[in-house]
Amino acid sequence: MRYRIIFSYDGTLFQGYQKQPGKRSVQGEIETVLRKLNHDHDVHVCASGRTDAGVHACGQVAHIDFLYEVDDFQKRANSLLPPDIYIHQVMLVDSSFHARFSVKKKEYCYKINCGEYLPFQRNYVYQYGRSLCLDKMQQALSYLIGTHNFRSFAKTDATREDYVRTILEARLEEKNGIVSITFVGTGFFRYMIRNMVGTLIEIGEGKRAPEDILEILKKENRIYAGKTAPPEGLYLMNVTYE
Amino acid sequence: MRYRIIFSYDGTLFQGYQKQPGKRSVQGEIETVLRKLNHDHDVHVCASGRTDAGVHACGQVAHIDFLYEVDDFQKRANSLLPPDIYIHQVMLVDSSFHARFSVKKKEYCYKINCGEYLPFQRNYVYQYGRSLCLDKMQQALSYLIGTHNFRSFAKTDATREDYVRTILEARLEEKNGIVSITFVGTGFFRYMIRNMVGTLIEIGEGKRAPEDILEILKKENRIYAGKTAPPEGLYLMNVTYE
Repeated sequence: MRYRIIFSYDGTLFQGYQKQPGKRSVQGEIETVLRKLNHDHDVHVCASGRTDAGVHACGQVAHIDFLYEVDDFQKRANSLLPPDIYIHQVMLVDSSFHARFSVKKKEYCYKINCGEYLPFQRNYVYQYGRSLCLDKMQQALSYLIGTHNFRSFAKTDATREDYVRTILEARLEEKNGIVSITFVGTGFFRYMIRNMVGTLIEIGEGKRAPEDILEILKKENRIYAGKTAPPEGLYLMNVTYE
Repeated sequence: MRYRIIFSYDGTLFQGYQKQPGKRSVQGEIETVLRKLNHDHDVHVCASGRTDAGVHACGQVAHIDFLYEVDDFQKRANSLLPPDIYIHQVMLVDSSFHARFSVKKKEYCYKINCGEYLPFQRNYVYQYGRSLCLDKMQQALSYLIGTHNFRSFAKTDATREDYVRTILEARLEEKNGIVSITFVGTGFFRYMIRNMVGTLIEIGEGKRAPEDILEILKKENRIYAGKTAPPEGLYLMNVTYE
């Protein structure tokens, strides 16, 4: 029995998505709950990808293998889950479905408050608190669209081999002082979005020119990109499968 | 030196506005910080009124007496305050200004999510999760406007003498599944808004008729009103002075 679940979580009180001994993780909390619905047999929750500590998800997807079909799965799981995780949908799927390998595209959104500090938003929107030149950011954003080697936006000590990714869509919207930057792509590696956003902010501040993005991409070296934007502004919005 | 401050706070991690020994309160946190700006002399923060545990404020007002004028008051205070309190404005005022006694009107807003549970909103919007008949609620709301004895909406064991209050404005709006009910009045006593909202929800559910409000007001007895709505949906929006 392979199930596909779609779920949200508030990343604030988690040390990240991935299970780690002695730390509160999204995966750990869900696996503890699902074990109870699986006749006390271990359950492995395989998500579309990880998210870091403080990062949120509105439409994370995972697959899980169960011994039997479970009645009222969604309701029973939600009643056992902590209040910062919620399962929106549960579907029986073919065993060929893989939440990580079958991903077609992913959408992320990063939120920045350019207005006055708001305590209610402190864990949900980056409280930047100054104005940004959105035209310049918009222009810079357009240079990120397409297939590029994004190594300059990787974690400093990252050692993976392949940094080539495709960004299909990137757009910026502003509403009531909150700037939302949406990225749709075939895949993103760790810190990629937060490093792109940090660089876009420096462009919006006038510290760099929009065209610098082209140069940064070419360099394929982390030291040329901007600071890493903080986790609380980032949301995994949804994952699309074939 | 009398200062008037306008401030916001996220009520989630406070046991309420009022200082209480051994408990984390908004007043306690602000007084601790302001003492440092007042040459280590005690400061009493006198707010327009209290709010209960879990209730938020966007535009709470208080007055404070200082020994001397403080340069960069707002900036220095905010740098010392915890992240769930923020001072928006500091003004030197006449010593005749009293944050509680000079109140002309107050505005509160209560937010209800009729859509699916959202973990991000769990401390900021009441996660009701079902649909409500807004027309009936709107009609019921109109009966609350005016000067009435609101004793039926008081705390069960409340013993104050005067429950007559004037509601100047009451309106209901819906946006993306979130219902916001705004009340403007000359004053509100403890639990009054949460008890009115709890009753309005029962009307929106069809368990009571809108006209029941008239009967409940007449009874002047808590047992006739509905349940108390939870604190996390409630915001003190602003306070108006003469």
